Amino acid sequence: MRVKTIPRFLFALFFWLSIPCLLVAQTPPTPALLLGAAWYPEQWPEARWDADLALMEQAGIHVVRVGEFAWSSMEPAEGKFDLDWLQRAVRMAAKHHISVVLGTPSAAPPAWLTQKYPETLLIDEHGKRAVHGNRQQFSFTNPRYREFCRIISEEMARRLAAEPNVIGWQLDNEVSAISYDDYTRGQFQQWLHAKYKTLDSLNQHWTTSYWSQTYSDWSQIPIPVGGNNPGLMLEWMRFVSATWKDYLANEYRAIRKYASEKQPICTNTMGLFDGFDHYVVEEGLDIAAWDNYVGQGHLKDAGIGFVHDVTRGFKQKNFWVIETQPGMVNWATVNNMLNKGEVRAMAWQDVAHGADMVSYWQWRSAQNGQEEYHGTLVGADGTPVPLYAEVKKIGAEFEKASPVLARTSPHSEIAMLHDYDSGWAIDWQKHNQNYEHDKVDQNFYKALRELTQTMDVVRPAAKRWCPWP
Amino acid sequence: MRVKTIPRFLFALFFWLSIPCLLVAQTPPTPALLLGAAWYPEQWPEARWDADLALMEQAGIHVVRVGEFAWSSMEPAEGKFDLDWLQRAVRMAAKHHISVVLGTPSAAPPAWLTQKYPETLLIDEHGKRAVHGNRQQFSFTNPRYREFCRIISEEMARRLAAEPNVIGWQLDNEVSAISYDDYTRGQFQQWLHAKYKTLDSLNQHWTTSYWSQTYSDWSQIPIPVGGNNPGLMLEWMRFVSATWKDYLANEYRAIRKYASEKQPICTNTMGLFDGFDHYVVEEGLDIAAWDNYVGQGHLKDAGIGFVHDVTRGFKQKNFWVIETQPGMVNWATVNNMLNKGEVRAMAWQDVAHGADMVSYWQWRSAQNGQEEYHGTLVGADGTPVPLYAEVKKIGAEFEKASPVLARTSPHSEIAMLHDYDSGWAIDWQKHNQNYEHDKVDQNFYKALRELTQTMDVVRPAAKRWCPWP
Amino acid sequence: MRVKTIPRFLFALFFWLSIPCLLVAQTPPTPALLLGAAWYPEQWPEARWDADLALMEQAGIHVVRVGEFAWSSMEPAEGKFDLDWLQRAVRMAAKHHISVVLGTPSAAPPAWLTQKYPETLLIDEHGKRAVHGNRQQFSFTNPRYREFCRIISEEMARRLAAEPNVIGWQLDNEVSAISYDDYTRGQFQQWLHAKYKTLDSLNQHWTTSYWSQTYSDWSQIPIPVGGNNPGLMLEWMRFVSATWKDYLANEYRAIRKYASEKQPICTNTMGLFDGFDHYVVEEGLDIAAWDNYVGQGHLKDAGIGFVHDVTRGFKQKNFWVIETQPGMVNWATVNNMLNKGEVRAMAWQDVAHGADMVSYWQWRSAQNGQEEYHGTLVGADGTPVPLYAEVKKIGAEFEKASPVLARTSPHSEIAMLHDYDSGWAIDWQKHNQNYEHDKVDQNFYKALRELTQTMDVVRPAAKRWCPWP
Repeated sequence: MRVKTIPRFLFALFFWLSIPCLLVAQTPPTPALLLGAAWYPEQWPEARWDADLALMEQAGIHVVRVGEFAWSSMEPAEGKFDLDWLQRAVRMAAKHHISVVLGTPSAAPPAWLTQKYPETLLIDEHGKRAVHGNRQQFSFTNPRYREFCRIISEEMARRLAAEPNVIGWQLDNEVSAISYDDYTRGQFQQWLHAKYKTLDSLNQHWTTSYWSQTYSDWSQIPIPVGGNNPGLMLEWMRFVSATWKDYLANEYRAIRKYASEKQPICTNTMGLFDGFDHYVVEEGLDIAAWDNYVGQGHLKDAGIGFVHDVTRGFKQKNFWVIETQPGMVNWATVNNMLNKGEVRAMAWQDVAHGADMVSYWQWRSAQNGQEEYHGTLVGADGTPVPLYAEVKKIGAEFEKASPVLARTSPHSEIAMLHDYDSGWAIDWQKHNQNYEHDKVDQNFYKALRELTQTMDVVRPAAKRWCPWP
Repeated sequence: MRVKTIPRFLFALFFWLSIPCLLVAQTPPTPALLLGAAWYPEQWPEARWDADLALMEQAGIHVVRVGEFAWSSMEPAEGKFDLDWLQRAVRMAAKHHISVVLGTPSAAPPAWLTQKYPETLLIDEHGKRAVHGNRQQFSFTNPRYREFCRIISEEMARRLAAEPNVIGWQLDNEVSAISYDDYTRGQFQQWLHAKYKTLDSLNQHWTTSYWSQTYSDWSQIPIPVGGNNPGLMLEWMRFVSATWKDYLANEYRAIRKYASEKQPICTNTMGLFDGFDHYVVEEGLDIAAWDNYVGQGHLKDAGIGFVHDVTRGFKQKNFWVIETQPGMVNWATVNNMLNKGEVRAMAWQDVAHGADMVSYWQWRSAQNGQEEYHGTLVGADGTPVPLYAEVKKIGAEFEKASPVLARTSPHSEIAMLHDYDSGWAIDWQKHNQNYEHDKVDQNFYKALRELTQTMDVVRPAAKRWCPWP
Repeated sequence: MRVKTIPRFLFALFFWLSIPCLLVAQTPPTPALLLGAAWYPEQWPEARWDADLALMEQAGIHVVRVGEFAWSSMEPAEGKFDLDWLQRAVRMAAKHHISVVLGTPSAAPPAWLTQKYPETLLIDEHGKRAVHGNRQQFSFTNPRYREFCRIISEEMARRLAAEPNVIGWQLDNEVSAISYDDYTRGQFQQWLHAKYKTLDSLNQHWTTSYWSQTYSDWSQIPIPVGGNNPGLMLEWMRFVSATWKDYLANEYRAIRKYASEKQPICTNTMGLFDGFDHYVVEEGLDIAAWDNYVGQGHLKDAGIGFVHDVTRGFKQKNFWVIETQPGMVNWATVNNMLNKGEVRAMAWQDVAHGADMVSYWQWRSAQNGQEEYHGTLVGADGTPVPLYAEVKKIGAEFEKASPVLARTSPHSEIAMLHDYDSGWAIDWQKHNQNYEHDKVDQNFYKALRELTQTMDVVRPAAKRWCPWP
């Protein structure tokens, strides 16, 4: 994969210095650098789709992510599927030279599903069952939920994997919410049993003679809520990581049944979120993809740069920025606008760190919902917002730069080791409440990066990391 | 109702400038400006009542609110009523030229009621049933609770509405606590069904295609806890408002069966509390009444002035300050005393904004209970506190000013629009956590009031607002 | 007990001024001033014990506390006891001239117990049952739990009370966690019934006519959670105090059956923790013992001095510092190290205020568990930490000073009154959130102590306090 002819950071540096375009223009149907947007056709009248896609095409947008969160539109009742509309949307995109990443909708089960099968809903750490209306309300171990996910994923792949402009898949969305239900607890106990074989071994490894914690039966082991034995807590996080890997593998297999290897399958992750070990979860996927939000404030070079490099390390190759912020978010304490040009700077920073896709969330403001005031490229009224022009400029630059940057990636001579287990252990028994390991990592990163221009961030177990073969 | 001969603010200005008394003294039995106090005779030996009423009379106090919170004294066991003591208290007040506002006791159900019928207790947002010992522990939709409220209200009215010194009624006390029980949820779903007729209409209005929220059955719709679809959240607040209106109408009807129209019926509200749409709830009542507490700190002109004018706008006419602070409260983070003269300033500010009653909470310190350290006019030992003298002065002033101020009200040439729906929508999706719409309203109000002397604050739907007919 | 020949504070002053040693050395097997450590032999291979005890002996450590938290090692299954290892540990200590305080293990029930009898687990104020893995998870009223505690305590005493180097007993550990289960509520109601005899009396004493709180049946009375009637809240705290007294008496009786009066029985308390009335709870014990932790920051003379004197007042005689901090803790927001010499200063401050024992928690860092990063004298690797040398110095000083200080205690001419009921009443209805009665007490204490050198702190009901007989 790695072609070392042009170290990407040098190229990015070029753009950072604001020299706008230096390459001979040539616009392939699907450029190597993909500018994109999250598009939710199910929220709009079909008659409007063409106008939206035309506006995208004019802005140099060549990929849309669709399907994510559309379960109630794809399967309005149990076993009744309607993917015709989605197929029409995908094909209409093709007419505008726009590729598609299809998102499985499992982050937001329909009301009929969780009403009929309430055991698919998660139980939070206070023992309360989730309710409908938000997302991530499912239990990540529930076999029935897995089966529903398999079916809808497979149905999507069966109908749409053969569409020529489908270039990849996203599984679920920002997986993170864990469940404390009894079935999950039983799974955890079985997982421990399989790992430790005997309770004697577990008791010894965890020093359970401390505070009379000794387990005499696997069924005594709780899911830790709040503080508990660090051994127990660490294994719980490892179980959570293994469970997410397994949860996603279920959808992966369903899709791969119909989708060729040319369609990489990812899930979108949340930067430094540490609710699971990303190295473990990404093992089962083809490409890393993350959601790059500044949130409040402004782009900070080393801060987001570090996250890019962490994400590139998940698969040790280029990745996608599958969601990013068109000017502002709606969930920060102060949702400031980014400055003029700052979104463009973000896009080129993405590319400089190895992103092959930069995709805005979202294309158009919804008419309601929890995120109606998030930044977009087109307003609720259907007309472009001011940022549209800046994105159009990025689109033109991406088209021009694509031939040169295609099949290149950052070339680092040093790497930082990064480890979830260590981070959790530090957080659980801090000696100073102000110690934030992410900040410490970023400080090391920043200092080193100033010396070396590009860096890798990899797991300690990384086998092949070494720039010299 | 509006007699425009003397704009009240001019008169109030007069008093603000501390020119003490300019009117020929004449003391009618019930002055137009009523100075009052909350009196809880059930907490004291009957032998003491006369001494308390005599002290009130000496201070120019001409109204007491009684009955509120006395359910266990009025109905010590299911269906066994004892209102004799209350009748004696009302009649003893009459002897001292003191009128009575009777309060229904539904804010604090007796222990026998909630023990025998636990379904009358509210379920909080965490799913926990309320327990006995505080107030507002009932479920505001529960039919059995409504029936108990109807019976005790009707019993009070049957026995006491004919007493000549009963001049009005207060329903419940500071209604605010809502319940998340299943019956309430069912009522909400029915209310939505009646409003939207079809789920298609509801799904479209709420854009439920967002996050797969689509409802295929009315019974799927949850009570929102925390964030949810803004359409759902808004309708929940409207349902809450409609429910409180309905809850109070139950008691209103029971009382009106016996009470003549000369006895206005109110509930006491809490200023800018926005747990329901006050315009909706007040539609079913005769007069607005609010509880004016400075809390920590000191009287701020525009701050409380705005709340007065909001409250006057509920019914677009004069109102009652049915509770106010005799010097200090017991619930602020720092319960400072008001300065000498500040309570008097508050009283005249009340009047200047259209209050026809200024009533202190409470007359005498209880010997125990959650509020035993709240400011009063008489200590737990039965002797007047220093503030008694200041209140006595207000009493004398009210008696003198009453003939001139009777049947006058503020005369405004401009109005601000004020809207609960908008406030909720802003709060649920703030773009800046520091944005407080009440503060913004108060800033506009302050700036305008300095130009115009008196202002109205009305709901956008107000039909008759216009100073020029 | 009080020998007034040498006021202890003068002696301590001596050491405070760092004049190291002035007494003729003589080392009795068990010095009057006992330097100690908490030792958990169950966490280590038996082959290591001798090395640890030898290190202790070299440091002048003459007492270890053992057994606390070792329930799963002492009773690995219901009714199957294994105390042989504990006897061997006690006897091996004897060989090194080290006495033993045996701790009952009831603060941490084994998993088999709470799994088989879940009713022994506490229910927290949110209605949630505790889970295994921490400590204090039992319900303090549960009869079955009491029976298990009785059996293990009696078994320990039967086997070990006759060991010549057992010099005392500690019951449980830092009792504090209360339960809100239904059985506890019933016990509380019975306790109130026994105290008030009639509901009329209770209603009158609590002024339950306030807010319609009147109780018509004992079973209506709730356990207060959050604010409630102050009368109810006060009685709840008194019930909690009585319950802890009773809870500990159960173990006390079991031990005293076999242990001679030469072995005093204590429980370790937590300074100014006010979750129960310590004067009540200590009535049933022989000697006060507390856990002296600076936590974050550094030793403050009057702050900890006040706590020492409060603790000395529990039994109005010398006490034990049965846990103290070897340099740092692991639970503060910033776990700073104490300065060189500060641990020694603490030890002598302990003695100056009447401590006859200064015992470090803990001897050696555990290999895992919630407290593995707490300060110790020996690291997880088995080698002494730097502080070991400082403690060794204290050990030598204690041995030298013991003959002179034996049977002396502080001699105060003034006393402060200290009262839990008053503290709770202030906290429940504060007029200023910044008012902290402990700080106010400490400020009075500090000012007075500067004038008088030594002070007593006693309960208002203290009968015999008066320095002049």
